[in-house]
Amino acid sequence: MSLEGKVLVAQGGGPTAVINQSLAGIVLEARKFPQVSKVYGAEKGVDGIVGENFLDLTQETTHNLEQVALTPSSALLSTRSKPDSKFCHEIFKVLKAHDIRYFFYIGGNDSADTVRIVNEEAEREHYDLRSVHVPKTIDNDLMINDHTPGFGSAARFVAQSFMGLNLDVKSLPGVYIGVVMGRHAGFLTASSAIAQKYPDDGPHLIYLPEREFNIERFLADVKQIYDRYKMCIVAISEGLTDASGTPLTISLRKGKAVEVDAHGNVSLSGSCALGDLLTEAVKERLGISRVRSDTFGYLQRSFLGCVSDVDQHEAREVGERAVQMAIWHDVNGSITIHRTGYYSVDYRLTDLSEVAGRTKLMSDEFINAEGNYVTDAFKYYVRPLLGSGLQSPAQLRAPRVPKRCVTCD
Amino acid sequence: MSLEGKVLVAQGGGPTAVINQSLAGIVLEARKFPQVSKVYGAEKGVDGIVGENFLDLTQETTHNLEQVALTPSSALLSTRSKPDSKFCHEIFKVLKAHDIRYFFYIGGNDSADTVRIVNEEAEREHYDLRSVHVPKTIDNDLMINDHTPGFGSAARFVAQSFMGLNLDVKSLPGVYIGVVMGRHAGFLTASSAIAQKYPDDGPHLIYLPEREFNIERFLADVKQIYDRYKMCIVAISEGLTDASGTPLTISLRKGKAVEVDAHGNVSLSGSCALGDLLTEAVKERLGISRVRSDTFGYLQRSFLGCVSDVDQHEAREVGERAVQMAIWHDVNGSITIHRTGYYSVDYRLTDLSEVAGRTKLMSDEFINAEGNYVTDAFKYYVRPLLGSGLQSPAQLRAPRVPKRCVTCD
Repeated sequence: MSLEGKVLVAQGGGPTAVINQSLAGIVLEARKFPQVSKVYGAEKGVDGIVGENFLDLTQETTHNLEQVALTPSSALLSTRSKPDSKFCHEIFKVLKAHDIRYFFYIGGNDSADTVRIVNEEAEREHYDLRSVHVPKTIDNDLMINDHTPGFGSAARFVAQSFMGLNLDVKSLPGVYIGVVMGRHAGFLTASSAIAQKYPDDGPHLIYLPEREFNIERFLADVKQIYDRYKMCIVAISEGLTDASGTPLTISLRKGKAVEVDAHGNVSLSGSCALGDLLTEAVKERLGISRVRSDTFGYLQRSFLGCVSDVDQHEAREVGERAVQMAIWHDVNGSITIHRTGYYSVDYRLTDLSEVAGRTKLMSDEFINAEGNYVTDAFKYYVRPLLGSGLQSPAQLRAPRVPKRCVTCD
Repeated sequence: MSLEGKVLVAQGGGPTAVINQSLAGIVLEARKFPQVSKVYGAEKGVDGIVGENFLDLTQETTHNLEQVALTPSSALLSTRSKPDSKFCHEIFKVLKAHDIRYFFYIGGNDSADTVRIVNEEAEREHYDLRSVHVPKTIDNDLMINDHTPGFGSAARFVAQSFMGLNLDVKSLPGVYIGVVMGRHAGFLTASSAIAQKYPDDGPHLIYLPEREFNIERFLADVKQIYDRYKMCIVAISEGLTDASGTPLTISLRKGKAVEVDAHGNVSLSGSCALGDLLTEAVKERLGISRVRSDTFGYLQRSFLGCVSDVDQHEAREVGERAVQMAIWHDVNGSITIHRTGYYSVDYRLTDLSEVAGRTKLMSDEFINAEGNYVTDAFKYYVRPLLGSGLQSPAQLRAPRVPKRCVTCD
């Protein structure tokens, strides 16, 4: 017989379009078990645990939970805090006081690391607790997982953006540089490739943090494409690094204070320095006048109205599976997603140490030899994650009219 | 009996989500008239006319036209060129050579001015031509029109963006500044107000180019909101000007070359200078550490997958009406949209001089006394334009759990 007591769920890290699907999955599944007396939600991740800021989700209506599941971003709010030993001591004081026996933390590799520390503290203090990490990140950089909930919807936003940008730049030609999120892993930036439908469609070039960025090679690449198509559409990851491994965004900010969070991560978003620098370089060095850049920023992880149904479905299931593992199987760990066919998945429980604090990068088979585009293997990998009903642009195919005044174009 | 001959259609200025609805409306309607021998489409606006780059849209399939209608951005490609007298002489050489008797130009107030010049040249040269301007602009700044095709879909994108940003910033609080398109008119930025559902939802502050921007008042406004909600979400127009009437984006670029197009318009997009400046000011002057800014850029006018059905419908109809006016009624002018109820519209033909080259701004009744938000009158005006099925976020409403360890929060 499994543990009797309360369930606690929390959300950590940056928002995604489907993170509340996992929340709904956990809450609705946990409410089915008679040994679960209450289901609490901690506000603002681990901060809300030590602050005892709990909502009693046992009393939340099922219908509202289903509405919240369709809403992007963390309904329980979030945190970037990473608990140390002292912090964890505070956590256990609270868990014991409320007789919480199941803890589910939805988040990325930093959140997995938090669950790992919480588990270690629980064992050290001989407190009987089942803690399971539920995966989530638009960066798609969790080890062991084929992919992560949240990624598919963000990738869909990026693909739909580049589909529109293709049309925009064709209409008023020039060079366009779109800067996409992704600190170390280029999966999200790489997903822009799905926007290609017609032979001259962009993105024509894709630069990923897995490869060293060289401004001279970049300019040569842009020139080659521009000479051919009279336009060039580029997708670039915000996490690009130079030959010394220094992120370009940091080397640009020389002499300025750099903002870091509790995990030592430098803030890459909320500034357009990278896009602006590359725009200037193309204008000045290649003499192209119409050069535009957008930094996709927060829109790509929070836009209300762009979601992958596959992503929704899987985010719901990882929540349900986490509860089933903890209560039926009485184990700790991280729920991981594994691809079993094209396209089907299964979920497993993986040891937290294999996921916590580690980053999965794009494998070499997904990046072309020149390091400026993705391979077909990547397109094959990523397409099903974007879900069904993906838009497709159409262009005119009417015949040209013979000229009557001008003899040559 | 109206003129016999060919029809020519072209698209000018920046793309919208529904500009190809107007193209489809013109082509499909024109193909019904027996006195129309052919329907040509000029590539790249007026540039394509002098270059005789015509597609024979009489031979385009109806089904592909319907697919193109659903695709954002100008299917016939676009131009920022503004014809002078010499340019117009070239236009007529081509129109005569191809026996073109009807000219439809889909665009904003610059395009209306082009149609006006073309009409004057036609009269001067005694060439029998019917030219009608078909309205389009995400800026919603055409005189006489209640609103313009393209605006509703872009406004919907802005509203959906701020709905998501509300959730994102609530989840990880701070100050967020979203920079929205709009050179002189603030309609698009103002539409962010539709994102407010819950009482503490943003945007909390909206700054429009119709009001002089004062950085000290801005900082005081942000501080007041931040003290109250521990977060602040701001929508700002890229076209903001200081007390001297100088756009902030230009005064920021002192000493740097400023890019202007053929109409003398300064390029405001493709740079994040405004958002970055304001972010710095909030960080330094108010001592708030988490301040983020996004410049929405091209996504807001080209994103594939965010469209207002009302906007689609009206964009189609203005195209159809333009053809009906020119062929049945044998007149020139600009098609204008007039609101007849809540919500219904009618279309009229307006003299080109009333629309061409002029800019409609937001009326005083749409802006609050403090100049930092919109009025209910504006929300009432704008809501129907965003169309049906607009998303609505949901939040948890579960009761709080009494604390057991901590006596005060």
